[in-house]
Amino acid sequence: MNGKAINLSEKLETFSEYWSPKIVSRFNGNDVMVVKVKGEFVWHAHEETDDFFLVLDGVVTIETEDGNVTLNPGELYVVPKGVQHRPVAAEEAHILLIEPKGTPNTGDIATAAEKIDI
Amino acid sequence: MNGKAINLSEKLETFSEYWSPKIVSRFNGNDVMVVKVKGEFVWHAHEETDDFFLVLDGVVTIETEDGNVTLNPGELYVVPKGVQHRPVAAEEAHILLIEPKGTPNTGDIATAAEKIDI
Repeated sequence: MNGKAINLSEKLETFSEYWSPKIVSRFNGNDVMVVKVKGEFVWHAHEETDDFFLVLDGVVTIETEDGNVTLNPGELYVVPKGVQHRPVAAEEAHILLIEPKGTPNTGDIATAAEKIDI
Repeated sequence: MNGKAINLSEKLETFSEYWSPKIVSRFNGNDVMVVKVKGEFVWHAHEETDDFFLVLDGVVTIETEDGNVTLNPGELYVVPKGVQHRPVAAEEAHILLIEPKGTPNTGDIATAAEKIDI
C-alpha cells in the first residue's frame, strides 16, 4: 500500500458501517485503521497490547475501569494493555486506530470484526 | 502519560524549533511524537524500522529514492525500512510521527535530535 499518500477522509467515505475497522496502511507489523463509531461498544481488554486511539472527527469517550477520557478531534489516548475499556460516542465519530496485526477489536477473536484493507 | 486526552495542537504550541520531535505518548514500545518542520531534512534511512508520517497541518513532501509523496493534512505515508528519504516543507508544517523507542530521527545516533517528553 506504499507509494502514495493515504487520505484518511477519502478512506472513510468508502464505507458506512460502525465498529468495523478498515486497514489503510501497515508499519512494523502494526495495522493502521480507520473506524466509524456510534453508540456504545462492548467492554473488553487486550491482554497483550496497548490500544491507540486518535479521534479524527466527532467526540468519543473512552470509558475505562480507571475512569473516562473524552476525546475531541486531534486528541489521542492510549489504553494500557489489560485495562477494561469501551469507546462510546453519542453521534457518529471517526477514529484512527493502531494495533499489532491480528488484534481482535473486541479483545476476543470469537466476536471480533474482520479487518479488511480498503 | 496516560489518564487524560492528549491534544496534539496544544502540544505543538509548547515549542517552536524545527526538526526536533517531541514525545507525546507511548504504546507497545513505540514513541508517538509531534514535530514542526520547515525546509529540507537530511537524506537518511532507517534500516530496522518503517517510518510513519501523518501530516497534521501544512504540506510535506516525503522525497524518497523511489519517488516523492506529497502529504496534506489528514494524509499519511509509511516509508518502508531501508528506503532513503527526506521530508521537505516549503512552509512550516506539523507531523505526527510513530517510531520504536530510541529510533534516531536522522537514521544515525551521532546526528540525531534528542527526543524529550512534552
